[in-house]
Amino acid sequence: MKKQERIMLAHGSGGKLSHDLISKVFLPSFTNPILEKLDDTAVFDLQGGRLAFTTDSYVVSPLFFNGGDIGRLALCGTVNDLAMSGAVPRFLSVAFIIEEGFLVEDLMRVLDSMRSAADEAGVAVVTGDTKVVEKGGADGLFINTAGVGEVPAGANISGSNARVGDKIILSGTIGDHGIAIISQREGLSFETDIKSDCAPLNGLVGEMLKVSTEIRAMRDPTRGGLASTLNEIASQSQVAIHVWEEKIPIREDVFGACEMLGFDPLHVANEGKLVAVVAAEKAEEILSAMRKHRYGKDAVVIGEVVESHPGRVLMKTAVGATRIVDMLVGEQLPRIC
Amino acid sequence: MKKQERIMLAHGSGGKLSHDLISKVFLPSFTNPILEKLDDTAVFDLQGGRLAFTTDSYVVSPLFFNGGDIGRLALCGTVNDLAMSGAVPRFLSVAFIIEEGFLVEDLMRVLDSMRSAADEAGVAVVTGDTKVVEKGGADGLFINTAGVGEVPAGANISGSNARVGDKIILSGTIGDHGIAIISQREGLSFETDIKSDCAPLNGLVGEMLKVSTEIRAMRDPTRGGLASTLNEIASQSQVAIHVWEEKIPIREDVFGACEMLGFDPLHVANEGKLVAVVAAEKAEEILSAMRKHRYGKDAVVIGEVVESHPGRVLMKTAVGATRIVDMLVGEQLPRIC
Repeated sequence: MKKQERIMLAHGSGGKLSHDLISKVFLPSFTNPILEKLDDTAVFDLQGGRLAFTTDSYVVSPLFFNGGDIGRLALCGTVNDLAMSGAVPRFLSVAFIIEEGFLVEDLMRVLDSMRSAADEAGVAVVTGDTKVVEKGGADGLFINTAGVGEVPAGANISGSNARVGDKIILSGTIGDHGIAIISQREGLSFETDIKSDCAPLNGLVGEMLKVSTEIRAMRDPTRGGLASTLNEIASQSQVAIHVWEEKIPIREDVFGACEMLGFDPLHVANEGKLVAVVAAEKAEEILSAMRKHRYGKDAVVIGEVVESHPGRVLMKTAVGATRIVDMLVGEQLPRIC
Repeated sequence: MKKQERIMLAHGSGGKLSHDLISKVFLPSFTNPILEKLDDTAVFDLQGGRLAFTTDSYVVSPLFFNGGDIGRLALCGTVNDLAMSGAVPRFLSVAFIIEEGFLVEDLMRVLDSMRSAADEAGVAVVTGDTKVVEKGGADGLFINTAGVGEVPAGANISGSNARVGDKIILSGTIGDHGIAIISQREGLSFETDIKSDCAPLNGLVGEMLKVSTEIRAMRDPTRGGLASTLNEIASQSQVAIHVWEEKIPIREDVFGACEMLGFDPLHVANEGKLVAVVAAEKAEEILSAMRKHRYGKDAVVIGEVVESHPGRVLMKTAVGATRIVDMLVGEQLPRIC
């Protein structure tokens, strides 16, 4: 297929053009023996035990942004959801919904960046699907990824496992992804270059689990930001979480952009960060393992799990006051991921 | 949530309204202990061995049609893809892309029909995702499902396993789904009531595998119809397939509608039928097991695998001529599934 070609409805027909698209565009991107069988379903061997399974659809706008694109996002997002359960991500599915008229060249760019993210994460894309809708039926390109991973013995990570006394670790700066997207979308230019943090975190999680399996809860603060993630854990575990504002790392330019736009950085999406609730006595060890990894070098303890006010997240502000940190209400940034 | 409510962008924010939608609408539909943990990733135990993994997105228009809706279609489609690999479908993910303004009542109808199809198929929805795009960003509702199943020992089913001498079994009438959709979409009315055949086929496949594991290839002829499915198998296995037109079951009203619309019934989509390539000496036994099942009562041998012209599908017509059956070229019915 030529790059200047455009996707037609017949590319989603299940007939000849669908097969052309699969064999000439998709297969070369994700070549592996399971996918190459071209059956509708991937079949593979896995050791018995605990499996992790997750899915996410991606509708980000714009499709290409500073620091990534919808392809990298879709690949990393599902890898990260698996990793947050402690699983080693193994196999991914990829499903495209494409608007008629979409440029094949743009599809190839997206596939390239999915492939390089898959290589970085060490996962295989083993099955997929393509649907084409008429012009105006969808906005360009939507991607769904689902993933299967293996949970190693000993790991027992869930949002409902946080206990009083545990420490809260954040792997790095917040708000980078959301601000990168909004600034591109609105054509804002800031003095510095704000990039999405979009990255696969399974390598970082692997290093953490080598040090200790006493990671109780772990989650990537994507949509809804750090505030929503902490609230989810507080609610699922029925504990209170206290964080210290001054400990939460944030780039100066991201902070400035949030001030300008009236956003609370705690509600802005991240795509390459994680929050871990860990046993207090293991916190330092886990932290130092994280700091050796490229995606954890700014990791820091930002708070702890306390007894009073179960289900609440409280923040000690820089000026010494305490405020309730609520889940995002409403929607400040639609189509962030 | 009230039925008359409409979906807002904030229902996809990852914040408070997302959680409301999950707890009040999605959870009650698919209640099970794995989903109720509310982690981003489902974790479950499976015995070791061969696993099957598949995905499909659904963009059917209209969302509700005679014999089913997008929910039943999305549930059955992934169950069927798993079943076609010989796997016992176990766990499903469900991901929604919803257009802002979509009626909550319609979403609940779709969820109801997903739940009843999941119950019929004996599968659990264990993880999910919801994205909302602005009005005009998508056409109503798109659904992606992915699924994990267990492949029983002995089953070795792939489009590339057909051998010369094998028989081709079709489980019932062709074209029902496609004609049901097009007649609804175009407001055509036929004298009789043409319903989509949308159904979960894992029960039928289970009965077939009880009789014999010598099922070489199996596929559900959805998009692209029976013609594309037979061509895929012929090409993957590098064999020729001969079918006899007079053996292929088709309802009289579906045949009439195809004539009127200028469609070749071999290219029209099915959503509750399967094609199986089986060892010749087991064909009768498998057939009689199929005929005892509600979704296989019209099963019939429609052809055989032969040596000459590898990669080709040939049909002996009712008048005694032989014609090449090609894959669908172009697109006769966009958004059929």
